[in-house]
Amino acid sequence: MVILSQISRLQINGDRLNDSINRLAKIGRTADGHICRLAFSPEDLQARNLVRRWMEEAGMSVHTDAAGNLIATYAGQVDGAPALATGSHIDTVPSGGPYDGVLGVLAGIEVVRVLRENNLRLNHPLEVIVFSDEENTMIGSRAMAGNLNLEEAISVADALSAAGGDWDTVTSAQRSRREIAAFVELHVEQGSVLESTRKQIGVVQGVVGMNRYAITINGYANHAGTTPMHLREDALIAAAQLVLAVQNLALEQPSQPVATVGKLNVTPNAANIVPGRVELTVDMRDLSQQVLDEMTLRLTQELGAIAQRTNTQIDITPILRVAPSPAADTIQATIQSVCQDLGLSYQMMPSRAGHDAMEMGRFTDMGMIFVPSEGGVSHSGEEYTSPEQCNQGANVLLNTLLRLDALYPCA
Amino acid sequence: MVILSQISRLQINGDRLNDSINRLAKIGRTADGHICRLAFSPEDLQARNLVRRWMEEAGMSVHTDAAGNLIATYAGQVDGAPALATGSHIDTVPSGGPYDGVLGVLAGIEVVRVLRENNLRLNHPLEVIVFSDEENTMIGSRAMAGNLNLEEAISVADALSAAGGDWDTVTSAQRSRREIAAFVELHVEQGSVLESTRKQIGVVQGVVGMNRYAITINGYANHAGTTPMHLREDALIAAAQLVLAVQNLALEQPSQPVATVGKLNVTPNAANIVPGRVELTVDMRDLSQQVLDEMTLRLTQELGAIAQRTNTQIDITPILRVAPSPAADTIQATIQSVCQDLGLSYQMMPSRAGHDAMEMGRFTDMGMIFVPSEGGVSHSGEEYTSPEQCNQGANVLLNTLLRLDALYPCA
Repeated sequence: MVILSQISRLQINGDRLNDSINRLAKIGRTADGHICRLAFSPEDLQARNLVRRWMEEAGMSVHTDAAGNLIATYAGQVDGAPALATGSHIDTVPSGGPYDGVLGVLAGIEVVRVLRENNLRLNHPLEVIVFSDEENTMIGSRAMAGNLNLEEAISVADALSAAGGDWDTVTSAQRSRREIAAFVELHVEQGSVLESTRKQIGVVQGVVGMNRYAITINGYANHAGTTPMHLREDALIAAAQLVLAVQNLALEQPSQPVATVGKLNVTPNAANIVPGRVELTVDMRDLSQQVLDEMTLRLTQELGAIAQRTNTQIDITPILRVAPSPAADTIQATIQSVCQDLGLSYQMMPSRAGHDAMEMGRFTDMGMIFVPSEGGVSHSGEEYTSPEQCNQGANVLLNTLLRLDALYPCA
Repeated sequence: MVILSQISRLQINGDRLNDSINRLAKIGRTADGHICRLAFSPEDLQARNLVRRWMEEAGMSVHTDAAGNLIATYAGQVDGAPALATGSHIDTVPSGGPYDGVLGVLAGIEVVRVLRENNLRLNHPLEVIVFSDEENTMIGSRAMAGNLNLEEAISVADALSAAGGDWDTVTSAQRSRREIAAFVELHVEQGSVLESTRKQIGVVQGVVGMNRYAITINGYANHAGTTPMHLREDALIAAAQLVLAVQNLALEQPSQPVATVGKLNVTPNAANIVPGRVELTVDMRDLSQQVLDEMTLRLTQELGAIAQRTNTQIDITPILRVAPSPAADTIQATIQSVCQDLGLSYQMMPSRAGHDAMEMGRFTDMGMIFVPSEGGVSHSGEEYTSPEQCNQGANVLLNTLLRLDALYPCA
């Protein structure tokens, strides 16, 4: 049985962790300093091999499930206990950075290294998971959550076998709360909230849900010289009102959701023609499904009012709907108390980006630990989190897992 | 000497005019019902040949100047008198209609036919001009006005010879007030002002000037999920405020100018990224240079305020500046009195589209007569002005030229 006073002296080896981060960053490094390690690419497979070796060297048994997830297990003391799990991903966007996903995987391995060199085992088995294709289909965590959209994921079906997966049996990757009692993911923030509040750790309250809509505004294209202002049906005037209304939808909610018009195309898009048609997207995110529903209602009200004011026709089509995934209260409270005990400042915050933890939260207790991203820069070779910040996050992960091991029953 | 009581009985032959319009509309007619008669194309040259034949059959002597303008002269009674001139163009946009330009040319020829079959000659020579390439470079009327931008027009230099022009001597096409005392152009409105006010004739007060700007808004592209609303530098929010401000710039001026954002491009233009950059155009038109200058001043004030509010950087570059071309008071008053005497309702109005008359007004007295365009449709095979409306316009042109012949001195 692990003694808590003993735990509090445990620390991850920061040099070893950052050395691992730097070595992995060499795989897929492009001439302009980004990292390109697309899921299932040769670079991704090379990185998987290296990580697998590190897992085995840390004393873990490793297997790949049918969704191509790399699952390493550090055996626990209690037979038949469900696992505690941590992990993240090592695939990147086409011009990614060295920390996104990687930190969570390598910090998990480092936690095991520390336990092993101190001859410690948790009561629960400890799993470190590398999820497949987080940056695109999220096929790995979604298969584990039994939340796979087969039509959507079929794009990577052929690539799965290269990573040791198997499309025909992909549903076998599904796990349950009886197998994984809790999942904790350490990740760089990919935003600038921690930097602006000058906090060292973000305690994630959950991963926000997302409602995304495609909106088409039809006015009437006409000569920009000969058409008097009052006779126009200018689709871009309607779009401009909508862009500002969408901003207000977010600002008027106390929970600080975000709402974005990121894509907007004008037709015919010529300097001397009154715009006849605008197509745009609205993306809204919040921790609360109720808030999302209310924002959607307000959006449709605004669309009606704008269409009437501008003499245009506005159509709205849902294109993406992801339910929020709240973090378990137990895990949030544990991360907070670890931060307090380690003397690290922290900030409660939602994750406004999707993560594998979001899918894990669909079937078991989930929590996330954020560390700052310099300038909020993400999905870029310039993404930066200092070695000290990485170490702080890994130490929070280590101690959180130790305490959850005591909190979660083994049977 | 022409007797005015005799003039008032003169009428154009409406069937003959509309027969000419219909015959010309067959040249360049496309499968989908538009007319494609690009300047200097085989179709344009074929149309020039037909029009030239009609001019000669009407008793006019025809020549082509170095800018490819087809100039037909119906001799006057007074030796050495400057000409009165009318005309327009017969080239079209890629999917044009049967009336734009054509009505002004064929009504001019019809005026001469009527004079000739009544054995009448004006005191002044009467010129009917087909201007080169109105729809693109306006090389014809600009060369005549000595207002040629050589760099801009050089794109058609090679094509000129096909139409009987000569790039090397193109400046010889320049005319003066001593050669042309007044120019009157009949044209379809290409807008819906006359339709909405239910007037038969538009008496044009001048061709509006135009200030066009390219505006670049630089914000900061960022993750649409992880970037809180208050930390954003959203270029599209700034652009939306600008689009609405531009609309207000026009609405707040009593002269009813128009102002349009017709082109707008977002970068990177993805649903999940806060827009980092927006490029757009602002096009402003009014009869008064003073109003245009004031709108430009207000625009730059708005840009400054928006940049500050949205934390973006906004740059503005002038890309087009065309001075207004006012119609001569004498010609406006003459057209009005003709309308009154013919029992036609009329409306004073600016021309908010460019026309050859705009350039002619740079060096001599200019006036324009508008007839309605159904639904304001223009630059389309669906452009429509009824035979009766065409005839009314041609009769106003006939009687206006007769009265100007008496008003303008011959020496």
